Amino acid sequence: MAKKYMDMDTLKYLLYNVHDLQSVLDQEYYADHDKDSVQIFLDSIKDFSDKELYPYFKEVDEQAAYYEDGKIIVHPQVKVMMEKGGEMGVIASMFSYEDGGMQLPGMVGTSLGYIMDAANNHLPGYTGLTLGAAELVAHFANDELKAKYLPKMLSGEWGGTMCLTEPQAGSSLSDITASAVLQEDGSYKIKGQKIFISGGDHEYSDNFVHLFLGRIEGAPAGTKGISLFIVPKNRIQEDGSLVYNNVITAGDFQKLGQRGYCTTHLIFGENDDTKGWLVGEANKGLKYMFMMMNGARIAVGRGAAAISMAAYQASLQYAQERPQGRRLNSTGKKEINQKPSLIIEHADVRRMLLLQKVVAEGSLSLTLLTSRYADLVKTVKDKNERDRYNLLLELLTPLVKTYPSEMGGVAVSNGLQVLGGYGYTTEFILQQYHRDIRIFPIYEGTTGIQSLDLLARKVTMQNGKAVELLAAEMMQSIQTAANYEELRPYATQLEERMKLMQKVMMHLMVFAKQGDYERYTADANLFMEFFSNIVMAWLWLDMATAAKTDLVKGDKTYTDEFYESKVHAMKFFFKYELSKTTYLSEVLMSDEVLTIKKEEQKVGW
Amino acid sequence: MAKKYMDMDTLKYLLYNVHDLQSVLDQEYYADHDKDSVQIFLDSIKDFSDKELYPYFKEVDEQAAYYEDGKIIVHPQVKVMMEKGGEMGVIASMFSYEDGGMQLPGMVGTSLGYIMDAANNHLPGYTGLTLGAAELVAHFANDELKAKYLPKMLSGEWGGTMCLTEPQAGSSLSDITASAVLQEDGSYKIKGQKIFISGGDHEYSDNFVHLFLGRIEGAPAGTKGISLFIVPKNRIQEDGSLVYNNVITAGDFQKLGQRGYCTTHLIFGENDDTKGWLVGEANKGLKYMFMMMNGARIAVGRGAAAISMAAYQASLQYAQERPQGRRLNSTGKKEINQKPSLIIEHADVRRMLLLQKVVAEGSLSLTLLTSRYADLVKTVKDKNERDRYNLLLELLTPLVKTYPSEMGGVAVSNGLQVLGGYGYTTEFILQQYHRDIRIFPIYEGTTGIQSLDLLARKVTMQNGKAVELLAAEMMQSIQTAANYEELRPYATQLEERMKLMQKVMMHLMVFAKQGDYERYTADANLFMEFFSNIVMAWLWLDMATAAKTDLVKGDKTYTDEFYESKVHAMKFFFKYELSKTTYLSEVLMSDEVLTIKKEEQKVGW
Repeated sequence: MAKKYMDMDTLKYLLYNVHDLQSVLDQEYYADHDKDSVQIFLDSIKDFSDKELYPYFKEVDEQAAYYEDGKIIVHPQVKVMMEKGGEMGVIASMFSYEDGGMQLPGMVGTSLGYIMDAANNHLPGYTGLTLGAAELVAHFANDELKAKYLPKMLSGEWGGTMCLTEPQAGSSLSDITASAVLQEDGSYKIKGQKIFISGGDHEYSDNFVHLFLGRIEGAPAGTKGISLFIVPKNRIQEDGSLVYNNVITAGDFQKLGQRGYCTTHLIFGENDDTKGWLVGEANKGLKYMFMMMNGARIAVGRGAAAISMAAYQASLQYAQERPQGRRLNSTGKKEINQKPSLIIEHADVRRMLLLQKVVAEGSLSLTLLTSRYADLVKTVKDKNERDRYNLLLELLTPLVKTYPSEMGGVAVSNGLQVLGGYGYTTEFILQQYHRDIRIFPIYEGTTGIQSLDLLARKVTMQNGKAVELLAAEMMQSIQTAANYEELRPYATQLEERMKLMQKVMMHLMVFAKQGDYERYTADANLFMEFFSNIVMAWLWLDMATAAKTDLVKGDKTYTDEFYESKVHAMKFFFKYELSKTTYLSEVLMSDEVLTIKKEEQKVGW
Repeated sequence: MAKKYMDMDTLKYLLYNVHDLQSVLDQEYYADHDKDSVQIFLDSIKDFSDKELYPYFKEVDEQAAYYEDGKIIVHPQVKVMMEKGGEMGVIASMFSYEDGGMQLPGMVGTSLGYIMDAANNHLPGYTGLTLGAAELVAHFANDELKAKYLPKMLSGEWGGTMCLTEPQAGSSLSDITASAVLQEDGSYKIKGQKIFISGGDHEYSDNFVHLFLGRIEGAPAGTKGISLFIVPKNRIQEDGSLVYNNVITAGDFQKLGQRGYCTTHLIFGENDDTKGWLVGEANKGLKYMFMMMNGARIAVGRGAAAISMAAYQASLQYAQERPQGRRLNSTGKKEINQKPSLIIEHADVRRMLLLQKVVAEGSLSLTLLTSRYADLVKTVKDKNERDRYNLLLELLTPLVKTYPSEMGGVAVSNGLQVLGGYGYTTEFILQQYHRDIRIFPIYEGTTGIQSLDLLARKVTMQNGKAVELLAAEMMQSIQTAANYEELRPYATQLEERMKLMQKVMMHLMVFAKQGDYERYTADANLFMEFFSNIVMAWLWLDMATAAKTDLVKGDKTYTDEFYESKVHAMKFFFKYELSKTTYLSEVLMSDEVLTIKKEEQKVGW
C-alpha cells in the first residue's frame, strides 16, 4: 500500500482556485458554511479515511462479500462505515436542514466522497447508495413516508438501495416486469426479482429501504408505466417494531473487483407478503429516478476519478523509489558503471505517470465542475441563470459519468505497467485498482448508453442551446488564458478544436434531420470520446491559467513546483490527448457505414 | 463458458490462403510433412484442447497455484498437460529429428500453441517454457548436456524454465548479480535469487531444468559478463539417479491472472551446494538468450492473440443470444411493443465485436507471418533470401510481442463491456480473460522495452534496410489489392500511410543523427502504436485480398459470409484503427518535449 492515496492540495486548489467554491458558499442557502468550516469537515473525513478506510482496502477485497444461507456476509468494517460515517454526516451532509441534513454544497459532498473513494472504493458504496435512496425519499415521498424512513437512513442505521435492474431486461428499463397491486390499506403488493443490487443486504443494518421500480397493474407499457416504491426489507409496525417483509436475499454476485461491496440478487413477494408504498405519483417512477440520476452519475465519475488518483499515487511512489536501468547518455549507450537511475527518470515512465496525472486530476476537475453546476441549479435565485446551469449540467452529466470511468481504466493500467512484473502481483495494490475500476464504464448506464444520451438527447436539446452555452464558457477561458504568453498557443489550439467540434456536429446533424437516427448515433461512443477530450482540454486550460496566475502573483500558498506541474500537465494533455480529436473527427465524418446491420449484407462474424 | 474458444476456419485460412504454409512445407527440411499431415496434427491438438484444457479453464483460475512448505501446489491438470502434451509432441514438434523432434514448421508450432492458449492460457505455459528452455539446450549446449537433458524435456517428463529476473534488477539484465564459480569437476557453484520464474516448480515433474543467467567470477560488468548455465533442480548422478541440487522454492507470486500458471521465487546455492553447467561459451549468455528471444516473443504475441480470440468468441455468443433493448426506428424512437432485439443488432455492440475481431484475427495473422519468416530464415537455401527474411523477422518481432498484447487488452475489455454488468461477474468468463491478458504487455520485455528495441535497434539496423524490405512487401500487397475495385481505395490509403511513416521516421532520425537518443526514443511507445497500425492494415489488406480472390473465383471452401466478413473487417480496421496514425503522427512530429527530465525544471508531480 502506498503512503498516499490522494492529494489534498490538488483537491483544495480545484475547489477554491479553479472552481470557486466560495461563489457557491455565497448563496443564501449555504449561509451557515464558510471555507474554514468546510475545510474542517473535509479534514475530519480525511482523518476518518486514513484510519478506518484505507487500512482495510486490501482486506475488503481479499475477504470478499459472499452469500451463505440466505445472508450476505460482509467485512466487519462495513459496520464502521455505516455507523461512524453516518454520525459524521457522510450521508446527511447534502440534505436540507428540514430533512435533517447539514445543507452543505454538493461540491463538498463530492469532495468527501472522493476522499473516501480514493482511500477505499468498496466501503463508501454502502453509505453512498443509502444517500442516493434517501434523496429519492426526500424529494418525492410524502411526509409520512419521509418521517418513517429518512432519519434512520441519514444516520446510517438503515441501508438504502436502488432496485432497477431485472435479469431479463438489463439496461432496458422499459422491459421491467416487477408488479405492484394496490391493497385496501393503501400499500401495494410487490412481486418481482431484482439483480445487481449494490449494498442490498448485510448483517450490519437492521433494515434496508429499497427504492424499487415496478409496474402497477394495468399501467401502460414501456417506461411510461413504471412507478417508484419504497419496499423495506422489514416493514414498520404501528408500535414502531419491525416485521419481515418477505424480501428474500437469493445470492451475491461474485465479481472481478469491488469485491467488498456486495451485489445482491433480491426476490420480492415470493410468499405474496411483500408490501411497498408508492413514492410520489403513479407511473412517474422513471422520471423521478432520472431526476436524481445526475447526482448518481457524478458520483460514479467521482469514484473512478478517485481510483485513478489512488493508482497514480501508488505508481508515482514506486517510480520515485525503484532504481532500475539507466538514462541514455549522448552516445545512446547506457553507462553500466553508473548506479541505476530511479525509473521516474525514464521518459516512458514519465509519460505513463503524466497520463495518469492528467486523467486523475482532470477527472476530479470535471466532477467538481458538474457538482458546482448542480449546486447553482439548486440555489441561484435568478431563473435564467438557473436554466443556464441546468443545461450545462445536463450536457456534461454523460461526460462526468464516462470520461473518468473509461480513461480512468486506461490510466490505472498505465499505473500497473509502471511497476512491471510487480504490478501484476498481489504484493502491490495496482492490480486491485485495475479490477475495481473496470465496473465504472458499466455502472449507472454503460458508456454506450451515456454516449447515446449525449448525442441523441443532450446535444440536441433546445436546438443545441447547451452546446452554445458551453462554447461561451470555453471562449471565456480561452480569452483569460491568452493573457499569458506561455498559455496562448494552447488557447488557440482549443479554439481550433472547438471549430472542429462544430464541423463534426454539423456533419452528424444531417442524419438526425433526415430521420436516420441509427446512422446519427452509430458512432456515439467515438463522439463521446471526441467531445470529452475537448471539454477536458478546456478544464486543463483553466487549471493552468489559475496556476499561472498564482505563479505570476508570487502566491506562496502552494509551491512553485505545484503550480508548474499544473501548467506542464496541461501541455501534456494537449499534446497527447487532445490530439486524438484529429483522428476521431476523421472517423466521425467518414462516409463509410460499417456497424449498422443491413439485412441484405452477407457479412458473417 | 462459451461453446467456441477459437475459429479453426480462420486459422486454416490464414495458414494456407494468406500466409502460404505450403511454400514453407516445400522447403527440403520439412519434406516429410504436407498439408494433410499438418491438419491431422492440428486437429488432434484441437481435440486435446477441447477435452483436457478448455473444461478446466475456470478451475485453474479458481484453484490457483500456491506455495506451501517449500512446495508449489498446482492444479492436477498440469500433469495431463505435461504428460499427454509431451506425448503428443507439443514440446518436441518444432525440434529437429536429430534432437528428437518432429521437425515441423514454426507456423505449425504457433498454430498448435494458439489453439491450446485459446482453450486455456494457463496450462500450456508449462510445456511452452519447457520448449523454450529446451531450445537453448538444443542450440547451445554441448552433446553431453544435450544427451542428459533434452530427451526428458521434449517428452514433458522434466520441466524447463528461464531464470533471468532478479529482485533488484527487474528488466535491467545488465544488473544481474547471480554468481558462478568454476569447480574442479568442470561444473560451476551457483548462487543467487531469481524471481518471476514461470512454471518453476510443482509436484508433477521429477526434475526442472533451469536455464540460468549468472556471472562467472571476474567477468566484465554489464551484459557482456553474463553466462548461461543449466542448473537442474536435481542433479543427475553417475548412475542416472537424481540428487537434490539445493534449489530452494521460496515462494509463488500471487497474481491478477494466469493464476493456474505458477510464478516462483527460487533461491540457488543457499547451502553452497548448487551446481550448474555452462552452456556454450562464457559471457555469451545474454547473446544466446536473445537468439532464442524472437521465438519467445512470437509465443507471447500468440498467447495474447489466442486470449483475445477466446474472449471475442465468448462475447459474440452472448451478443447473439441476449435480447435487450430495441433498434431505433426512423423516428428515433424505440417500438416498445416490439419484442427486444438481440444485442448484436445494436450498432455500438457491433462496433465492439468488430474491434475484437480485427484485433484477434489480425494478431493471429501477425504471429503466423513472423513464424513464417522464422521458418524461412531457418530453411531457405539462398543466403540473400535468408538475410531478407531475417531482417523482416527482426523488425517485426517487437511488434508481434506488443500489438496483440496491448490491443488484445483493449479488445478483451470491449468484450467484457458487451456483456454489461454480467461481464463483471464471475458467472461469465470475460473477467478472467481481462485479468489473464494483462500480463502480456509485461512478459518477455515490457511494451516500453519492445518500443525501444523497435525504434532504436530495428528501424536503424543496416541503415534502415529492414524497413525498406517491409515497404517493398507492402507495395506488392497494395498492387495486388488494387486489382479489385472494392479494395482499391484501401490500397491507396495504405500507400498514403506508408508515406506518412516515411515522414515520421525522417523527422525522428534527425535527433538520432544529432546523438540526442533520449529525444529520439522519448515517444517510442507511440511510434510502436503508429508503426503497428500500419503493419496491421497491411495484414488486413492481404486477408481481404485473399478473401476477395476466393469470392470472385467462386471458391466454396468457406462460405460467402466468411469471405465477406474478412473484407468487412478490413474496412473496419482502416476506418477505426488505421486512422489513429493521423493523430499519432502529429504527436510524434510535435516539437514539444514534455517527458524528458530536465534538471532545471521546477515541475512537481
